[in-house]
Amino acid sequence: MSHVLVVNSGSSSIKYRLLDMAAERPVAWGIADRIGEDGGELTHRRPGADPHVRPGPFADHEAGLAAVLDAFGAAGPDLSGVALAAVGHRVVHGGDRFVRPALVDDAVMRAVEELAPLAPLHNPANLEGIRVARKSFPDVPHVAVFDTAFHSTLPPAAHTYAVPERWRTGYGVRRYGFHGTSCAYVTRRAAAWLGRQVEEVNLVVLHLGNGASATAVAGGRSVDTSMGMTPLEGLVMGTRSGDIDPSLPGYLAREAGLTAGDVDAALNRESGLLALAGANDMREVRRRAEAGEPGAALALEVYARRVRKYVGAYYAVLGRVDAVVFTAGVGEHDARLRAEALSGLEALGLAVDPERNAADSGEERAVSPAGARVPVLVVPTDEEWEIAVEAVALVGGRG
Amino acid sequence: MSHVLVVNSGSSSIKYRLLDMAAERPVAWGIADRIGEDGGELTHRRPGADPHVRPGPFADHEAGLAAVLDAFGAAGPDLSGVALAAVGHRVVHGGDRFVRPALVDDAVMRAVEELAPLAPLHNPANLEGIRVARKSFPDVPHVAVFDTAFHSTLPPAAHTYAVPERWRTGYGVRRYGFHGTSCAYVTRRAAAWLGRQVEEVNLVVLHLGNGASATAVAGGRSVDTSMGMTPLEGLVMGTRSGDIDPSLPGYLAREAGLTAGDVDAALNRESGLLALAGANDMREVRRRAEAGEPGAALALEVYARRVRKYVGAYYAVLGRVDAVVFTAGVGEHDARLRAEALSGLEALGLAVDPERNAADSGEERAVSPAGARVPVLVVPTDEEWEIAVEAVALVGGRG
Ligand SMILES: Nc1ncnc2c1ncn2[C@@H]1O[C@H](COP(=O)(O)OP(=O)(O)O)[C@@H](O)[C@H]1O
Ligand SMILES: Nc1ncnc2c1ncn2[C@@H]1O[C@H](COP(=O)(O)OP(=O)(O)O)[C@@H](O)[C@H]1O
Repeated sequence: MSHVLVVNSGSSSIKYRLLDMAAERPVAWGIADRIGEDGGELTHRRPGADPHVRPGPFADHEAGLAAVLDAFGAAGPDLSGVALAAVGHRVVHGGDRFVRPALVDDAVMRAVEELAPLAPLHNPANLEGIRVARKSFPDVPHVAVFDTAFHSTLPPAAHTYAVPERWRTGYGVRRYGFHGTSCAYVTRRAAAWLGRQVEEVNLVVLHLGNGASATAVAGGRSVDTSMGMTPLEGLVMGTRSGDIDPSLPGYLAREAGLTAGDVDAALNRESGLLALAGANDMREVRRRAEAGEPGAALALEVYARRVRKYVGAYYAVLGRVDAVVFTAGVGEHDARLRAEALSGLEALGLAVDPERNAADSGEERAVSPAGARVPVLVVPTDEEWEIAVEAVALVGGRG
Repeated sequence: MSHVLVVNSGSSSIKYRLLDMAAERPVAWGIADRIGEDGGELTHRRPGADPHVRPGPFADHEAGLAAVLDAFGAAGPDLSGVALAAVGHRVVHGGDRFVRPALVDDAVMRAVEELAPLAPLHNPANLEGIRVARKSFPDVPHVAVFDTAFHSTLPPAAHTYAVPERWRTGYGVRRYGFHGTSCAYVTRRAAAWLGRQVEEVNLVVLHLGNGASATAVAGGRSVDTSMGMTPLEGLVMGTRSGDIDPSLPGYLAREAGLTAGDVDAALNRESGLLALAGANDMREVRRRAEAGEPGAALALEVYARRVRKYVGAYYAVLGRVDAVVFTAGVGEHDARLRAEALSGLEALGLAVDPERNAADSGEERAVSPAGARVPVLVVPTDEEWEIAVEAVALVGGRG
């Protein structure tokens, strides 16, 4: 009962991680990429060992997962010797249907499929991963863990858009929020760091990865979050615009002859840092800014200012903030971004200590000055661990 | 040289006001409505006199203005006896072309026309008002005063959307901001109230009327504002949604077969308070909430929460806030909204004093407790006065 296999199935990749829950550590992990395309490769890793690489192509998710199982066979551990408590699956959109993890059965599969219009790029791919994994592990409970579930506690004032009723009730138009699994993990860890019960802490959680979001946590629960009906709203991201004037699609339809779909695609895939700096990876944006590229410098300013505005907005929502918590790639590793995002916020009790902020230990840590009114924390996120914990909690609770 | 006629020409109405600049008071004002439609009526007012009403219909703006001049002839004052220093015209969109008021000539008219794609409902109507007024007052200087001009000081980090370059440079996609004339007036008055130079004050200005916006003023200049490329972005308004997930048009195109234009029209005209409460007028929304309608209660919460979030966001942008200033219909008269919007913000030094807040004197006043760290002010706006002052400053500066 001590292991969980976590599967994160995207449209063209399967990421996986086998976790030893008792020892609290990963046993093996990897990714099969370019599924359904030419080329592709599977990389399987174990602690302290060289990566085991298997060439593609992988015709579909079934072929991808078969390669994963082959890799386990060849490079270990032997899955037949592992007692799997559960297979935990990441599912992006749970709509207002899934407010907690769900034991997968055919009805759950249908429900996830019905939510596909809200996440057309994600839910079908997540579902395909569940489908093939159930075939390979028919006797293990499969648990779906939803990115939206942590935000099911948003109050109506936070999740309601001021748009016509026919859209709200007829088409499920509301704020759902994403990155919930990461937020749940980070909230628990931050509470522990502060020495408080989860139910007691008010946090602003800044998940800054390729996708980026800010979440206001009150008493351990999400009460506002920057991503909305889809993961497009809110902060500036690698290739996503975040907030814009909602008239933009209508304007570009009129003036440039674009459809709403054209604009949506460009806002999701050709915007954000990529549009301003010519690169969507923050490290590359930094390099370009240092090389004197004005677009990259502007991109950093726009990015940091947007984060700062959400910190202020959620401070106002929460009234009392016990900590601001940075996580994910940019949040964990980009010290300058943290400093820029919080610059000038002394009146809110917020600041970073230059030395602490610069030290990238990879550990949970405070980067605010000693004795700061509002601690600023860096908490490396671990969504796979959170999925496994939630899967075990569900399965254990039933057993 | 002591009078200015201010004209605010909309698509179906002409509002006007004749101001005595030396005496600092209106001499006459009124509105011709339903221009180009059936019915319609002109109401002309003078202080202390009964309104003078002339029936329509008014075939076009030319007929509307002719009726205005007839009303002056019939009910006074006799315009031939008034030395008009200028006719001041409200123009909604000045793009990045007009950063201050402009003396109208044919080139300015062309430029305003070229900006019409950015404000298709407003600029053509404003222009039509200028055209007919120039015919009627050929020897008086006409001055165009732009709603966007006060926000020409937005730094690039505030006015840049993270969207493709081809949209930004090819189609003028950026944040412009609106309500600038009101903000300029209110900023000047708030500085005077605080006993400070305009160049010294940091303010959050909340213009809450039928349209609504928040503006961050640093050193007397606009450094961020909630309305964007169009007046749709930001706060919840009478019939406008304000901020939403930018994927909504694409989603509704896919799922409901709507065009970007359909969605844009609904977001501008069928959203906001109207969509949630069934009424776009705040007084009616309050009545419905008091009558126990849940949609109206939710509308008030969504509205107030959005204002609160912008107060927090702009607090973070400014770092130091000298006052929060409420203006326009809701801002000036809705004490409960002010209290709700600022509730829980004690950590930011913000609160209203229940008694002061409840007293609606119609005057400039503080509604925060005595000695508050950040005063909360109510400043009745006067856009016509501001237009007249700016027109005289321009004309005087040239003579
Ligand atoms: N040392 C670093 N400095 C700045 N940015 C970094 C650093 N390390 C990683 N990042 C950025 O983190 C982002 C990816 O975040 P991550 O959390 O790994 O992504 P995802 O959202 O896909 O899980 C990239 O923009 C990357 O450039
Ligand atoms: N006493 C009041 N209480 C609440 N709302 C009010 C009150 N008086 C006016 N309003 C609201 O102000 C709004 C109109 O604001 P106003 O500034 O006059 O509009 P505009 O933006 O068209 O200039 C309406 O929603 C109206 O209900």
